[in-house]
Amino acid sequence: MQLFTFWRSMATFRVRIAMNIKGLEAEPIYVDLLKGHQARPEFRDVNPSMAVPALVDDDGRVFTQSTAIIEYLDERYPSPPLLPTDPAGRARVRALAQITVADSHPLSVPRVRKYLGQELHASEQQIVGWARVWQSAGLDAYEKLLSSDAATGAFCHGDTPGLADICLVSHATGAQFYGGTIDGHPTVKRIFEQCMADERFSKAHPKRQPDAPPSV
Amino acid sequence: MQLFTFWRSMATFRVRIAMNIKGLEAEPIYVDLLKGHQARPEFRDVNPSMAVPALVDDDGRVFTQSTAIIEYLDERYPSPPLLPTDPAGRARVRALAQITVADSHPLSVPRVRKYLGQELHASEQQIVGWARVWQSAGLDAYEKLLSSDAATGAFCHGDTPGLADICLVSHATGAQFYGGTIDGHPTVKRIFEQCMADERFSKAHPKRQPDAPPSV
Repeated sequence: MQLFTFWRSMATFRVRIAMNIKGLEAEPIYVDLLKGHQARPEFRDVNPSMAVPALVDDDGRVFTQSTAIIEYLDERYPSPPLLPTDPAGRARVRALAQITVADSHPLSVPRVRKYLGQELHASEQQIVGWARVWQSAGLDAYEKLLSSDAATGAFCHGDTPGLADICLVSHATGAQFYGGTIDGHPTVKRIFEQCMADERFSKAHPKRQPDAPPSV
Repeated sequence: MQLFTFWRSMATFRVRIAMNIKGLEAEPIYVDLLKGHQARPEFRDVNPSMAVPALVDDDGRVFTQSTAIIEYLDERYPSPPLLPTDPAGRARVRALAQITVADSHPLSVPRVRKYLGQELHASEQQIVGWARVWQSAGLDAYEKLLSSDAATGAFCHGDTPGLADICLVSHATGAQFYGGTIDGHPTVKRIFEQCMADERFSKAHPKRQPDAPPSV
């Protein structure tokens, strides 16, 4: 398999964690989103949405969108599972995942930050403030949903890590990248730290990727 | 079941279509997002993310996030299916769904439009332009992915409607609400019209909901 990746991409971070949990390896192909390499024709042929991650399997099929890739890997390689088996539990985990993947993260991807600056003349400070507002709203939603539900365990859903934890970790990491903190969200913080103590999560961290600049 | 809904919510539109395809009914509970009723304490108790849809099942369990709800309904009520059975096909359908649910729609929900106007001082025209940019990017991605793949049939994936079609229809409808057109995206247009000829899609349309104002 090949994984089109960029160190700073929180969506690719999610796929890297899932692959580590599954014990899978993929050849990394680096796409520098900050230099606009996602718009190069050779990558647009792989993913017309011009976004990483894109996973190419051994048959040459291309998979895109982090949660779709993670659910694919979970169906192809069921052990250890990343979703529970009961429909209500699966719905809970998927809804927790979407707090990051739908409600928050799309608002601070490079193309959106670029538009805010170039078209709406937002200052750098306003763009950072924008990202932090949606990250904070997501942290609030996580905290309320996780702290009020008996289904929460050592991890978001029970006592083994899965899709919701992967998304929560990328969410908290994104917030940290923008200078935010998760200290005000104790359940989020507890689960984040539980996850990051696991090498399968921590070695997938953006700052530990070969294409990360030495300065980070 | 109860469905917390708002006529103009594209995410609730998706759930209504899925329920129609499954032959399921839910008592509608109207939450006027334009009047800010999603922030009322009685709704925040249901969904701390303050967003519709929220589906309450007969056991009182609350389900949120449109795709999580739709996959839950598909698992609980498997016929007719909304996703294919093979992992690669399921991943394709889920990725197509995320073009709307992650990449585009979250950028033009009420809270985001409000922030653009109040905090970034964007004009009404700039806010409409903003929404249309992300809708257009999504239409371009759909068109390229659908027109270049033999798995596309009468619908997004084969010849029966499913999750990807539900999302595409809500995407195209959202674009139309902002004065956009899908005429430049022939595959999207063909599938949209195929869907809307089906009463299970068309009767879920925002403009046909009891809480829609007569003027629309």
